[in-house]
Amino acid sequence: MIDFNLSIKTKIYFGPDKEDLIGDILRSENVNRVLIIVGEGSVKKNGLLTKVIGKIEEKKIDYLLLEGVRPNPNIEFVRDNLIKIRNYKPDFILAIGGGSVIDTAKLLACDYYYDGDPFDFNLHKAKPTKALPVGVILTISAAGSEMSTSCVIQDDVKGKKAGFNSDLVRPVFAIENPKLTYSVSPYQTACGITDIMMHTLERYFQPSSENEPADGFAEALLRSVIKAGQKVMKNPEDYDSRAVLMLMSSLSHNGLTNIGKPFGMPVHQLEHGLSGMYKTIAHGAGLAVLWPAWAKYYVQFDVDKFDQYARNVWNSQNPDKKENALQGIKLTEEFFRYIGMPSRLMEFKVGAIDIDGLINRLTDNGTRVVAHPVKPLDGEVARIIYNSCL
Amino acid sequence: MIDFNLSIKTKIYFGPDKEDLIGDILRSENVNRVLIIVGEGSVKKNGLLTKVIGKIEEKKIDYLLLEGVRPNPNIEFVRDNLIKIRNYKPDFILAIGGGSVIDTAKLLACDYYYDGDPFDFNLHKAKPTKALPVGVILTISAAGSEMSTSCVIQDDVKGKKAGFNSDLVRPVFAIENPKLTYSVSPYQTACGITDIMMHTLERYFQPSSENEPADGFAEALLRSVIKAGQKVMKNPEDYDSRAVLMLMSSLSHNGLTNIGKPFGMPVHQLEHGLSGMYKTIAHGAGLAVLWPAWAKYYVQFDVDKFDQYARNVWNSQNPDKKENALQGIKLTEEFFRYIGMPSRLMEFKVGAIDIDGLINRLTDNGTRVVAHPVKPLDGEVARIIYNSCL
Repeated sequence: MIDFNLSIKTKIYFGPDKEDLIGDILRSENVNRVLIIVGEGSVKKNGLLTKVIGKIEEKKIDYLLLEGVRPNPNIEFVRDNLIKIRNYKPDFILAIGGGSVIDTAKLLACDYYYDGDPFDFNLHKAKPTKALPVGVILTISAAGSEMSTSCVIQDDVKGKKAGFNSDLVRPVFAIENPKLTYSVSPYQTACGITDIMMHTLERYFQPSSENEPADGFAEALLRSVIKAGQKVMKNPEDYDSRAVLMLMSSLSHNGLTNIGKPFGMPVHQLEHGLSGMYKTIAHGAGLAVLWPAWAKYYVQFDVDKFDQYARNVWNSQNPDKKENALQGIKLTEEFFRYIGMPSRLMEFKVGAIDIDGLINRLTDNGTRVVAHPVKPLDGEVARIIYNSCL
Repeated sequence: MIDFNLSIKTKIYFGPDKEDLIGDILRSENVNRVLIIVGEGSVKKNGLLTKVIGKIEEKKIDYLLLEGVRPNPNIEFVRDNLIKIRNYKPDFILAIGGGSVIDTAKLLACDYYYDGDPFDFNLHKAKPTKALPVGVILTISAAGSEMSTSCVIQDDVKGKKAGFNSDLVRPVFAIENPKLTYSVSPYQTACGITDIMMHTLERYFQPSSENEPADGFAEALLRSVIKAGQKVMKNPEDYDSRAVLMLMSSLSHNGLTNIGKPFGMPVHQLEHGLSGMYKTIAHGAGLAVLWPAWAKYYVQFDVDKFDQYARNVWNSQNPDKKENALQGIKLTEEFFRYIGMPSRLMEFKVGAIDIDGLINRLTDNGTRVVAHPVKPLDGEVARIIYNSCL
């Protein structure tokens, strides 16, 4: 194990109708003026927003509603609303939605106190030193942003999707009602399942000690998500499976599955270029295509770990380590296919994929190599991976 | 999964020499006057206390030192020191030690603001409504109190060892330097390993859903602790194994391994009478004797779960479920024996065990039945269990 400092402060309120507590929860956090951020309409259509606002009004808490965060959220939304929010002077931001809404809330929380360009944190030109507290009512099990320190935003103009991590943006609370995810479409559910698995797998394939507890937690989390994923595809209203996916979304990205381990997300970096460049590509779907491609290239450098993955997650017990390692990758691909994810980039129907453009985004036009155990992920390696899943 | 609210707020500072940060950490928590609580001498002898006080003085933080918490800590210590502490007016309590010191700190933190009898919380006559914040420098991997909501104290006069849980006493931070545990004796190390396993097993054998993530986390934690336990018995200075034990101590009792599950600790309740009545018996050693006795009785009501335990923790794969379930219990007993724990009560050499006295303590003189899945733990069942391990 390696040295670390960790504080997973997010309070979880888990179960049906827990959103009814929002007024009491905000009061317990001493909130007087709350900025409510939502996406493009579903929380309005299904009545959740009205219900939540009712509970907030009951407690006589003032609020400002900000609507319209899009999927793959963009920095323009932050730029366009910052003055309005500063004028309102909230003491808290409540995100009702999934990763896009939460990440937008997180960046607004930091930019509220920052005089430089709103995208500076994502470009690692500055580090946040102060932020408004953020709370979450979660409506989709996917990004894990409800309990994470991460914030990923897209700059359409610069053609750049980029993230930063800060303890300051880890949400204060997450209200998790699995029933709110019953209406999430099969495709979005599958994208979420993939994202949860990837948050876990990226950590899992970072270097480990011989008896690494985090890897056992990761394997347990993956087995639970795979079982729940299979069930929820057959019955979208299987409460227990929706509950497993929701809680594992939070635990996949909160630091548990890399506790005492190095952190790195190379496949996420390969993907950010993709959904950044082609906005119709969902992040989870991009990961579903890229992870197997990444794995088939990198398996040569870590057969033991891929073999362990196959045995402990997929119960694949081929005595030949190499064959077993490859079988684990194959079973992952088949699972993604089963839940409705693509296997090749061409399935996205976005025309010819601009591999050079993807590599330039990944490597900042050839100036940067992505850190990766054993073999750095440079432009050359990225080209092999992208080409292998065209 | 069941509904729950959970906030695991404790910040972990993990690694060699992390105690050097104590001054900065206390400053970051806005501490001006700290009450330092320690045990009966080891932190003085090994220089840790001097080092920590030096760091606190460097930051010009005022402190009061309170020494002499004994193992199986007693309420008299709290009673005797409460006025002195109230006069000092600390804004923070720092516990340097293990479960006994931490639990004493927790009770003092609550009693500081409470006018009733200091033992009221443990007797469930009152609930804490306010507490001083508590921080920990951990010196033994065992009780998990450094990250838990629990506080167990002994009343010698009433002959009662009793605990309560409150979010108010979950420590603000835990500084965990595995090297500080190199000097813990093999026997105390083994008691700690047993306690960590028991915190996990008690939760594991509470009812589960079909695809229960917490059970997978528990199994992973147990496998890691068993491996680390075997290694550390051979080499007390095996850093990685000491690190695993320390971190698993914290995660075994912080709520992770029962996240989304019912909570209950029947074997701990069977044990509290034992080490409460016979003060030379270490809590962990008592558990090592009682858990197998409990398991051999209760296995008849939950063969499937005991079979799962044997397969997933001990890799025992007997196709006969009942035999495999029993094999899992046997392997646990053998492991306890291997690390130096007793198997029978007579090994404690405390004379004839007063079974009636133990039952009276457990059942509050026949007025109470301990909650237990499937079959309640009443005096009759307790008698069978105690008698079976004489």
